Amino acid sequence: MSLVVHHLDDSRSQRILWLLEELNVPYEIKYYKRDPITRLAPVELKQIHPLGKSPVLQDKEKIIAESGCIVEYLIRTYGKNTKFMPKEDDPMYFNYLHWLHFSEGSAMTPILLALYMSRLGDAAAPLLPRISSELTNHFTYMSDSLGDKKYFLGDEVTGADVMLVFVVEAGLNRGLLENYTNLMYIN
Amino acid sequence: MSLVVHHLDDSRSQRILWLLEELNVPYEIKYYKRDPITRLAPVELKQIHPLGKSPVLQDKEKIIAESGCIVEYLIRTYGKNTKFMPKEDDPMYFNYLHWLHFSEGSAMTPILLALYMSRLGDAAAPLLPRISSELTNHFTYMSDSLGDKKYFLGDEVTGADVMLVFVVEAGLNRGLLENYTNLMYIN
Repeated sequence: MSLVVHHLDDSRSQRILWLLEELNVPYEIKYYKRDPITRLAPVELKQIHPLGKSPVLQDKEKIIAESGCIVEYLIRTYGKNTKFMPKEDDPMYFNYLHWLHFSEGSAMTPILLALYMSRLGDAAAPLLPRISSELTNHFTYMSDSLGDKKYFLGDEVTGADVMLVFVVEAGLNRGLLENYTNLMYIN
Repeated sequence: MSLVVHHLDDSRSQRILWLLEELNVPYEIKYYKRDPITRLAPVELKQIHPLGKSPVLQDKEKIIAESGCIVEYLIRTYGKNTKFMPKEDDPMYFNYLHWLHFSEGSAMTPILLALYMSRLGDAAAPLLPRISSELTNHFTYMSDSLGDKKYFLGDEVTGADVMLVFVVEAGLNRGLLENYTNLMYIN
């Protein structure tokens, strides 16, 4: 099997499995488990890629890390000229790239901050209003942008949805999407 | 002037100004100042793009947000077939995309966490070892990847360096680069 997903439980690599299913490409999963106490990834992941994070995609001798880059690699390699990304001369192309970068660049930051803050209990109180306002800012933006479309770029699922779904799931898991019912489109 | 950079002081939009200078494209800067107490961006930025962040690039009627997307837009629009990005059939192309996504996806996260934690004083102590180990992880990876090359992809500056320079500067400003002297290449 040429494609291997190095997959950590409860991590961003869920996105990559979804995309591979959508692309209908055969792949193998190598599973890694978080430490049950620290929730950290196991050191074995460092043998695959020096960052030691998941997802990592292996395609024969190639090793690709960073979710946005893996999504681009898979679509450009196994889904060229398909619905999964707009063509580069399509005005939607930079809209597509915007969502790829927004998902990890902007959207995940307050989600991770909230996760870290939850470990500090009351001591984190001074930072919570700022984190909360950023979460509202991002989910409002996503909800307004999606509107009543089926997917973020229109009628068809694209790499943008693959990236955004992890943000939506994180919001759902934290009970943040009550006011953004259209974002629950993934279920 | 067709290009306008909506520029917030002390922000990621420094990258975009550097790239525009390298590309030798005329542009105009619209300046925004952070609130001196809260350090937040002014609400005027929300009139340009609903996220209310900087940088935002305006090219006639187009509005582009997210640093990685702006870098891609500028190089693909004003620097096509130049040294600033590898061609898509070049094996370095996904290396290039990796750095674009790594810069905000991975590298900025512990830097922002450390910044937030600094506001909590001693109360943040339980989280500092984890943040510190992630900073070491990322700067070691960057330093090992750069090696003795001049820029991250080789002899020529590319969009990867434009994205990474803000991470390097953040590391420098926090005194984190003592053990990574090759990363000080930007000065």
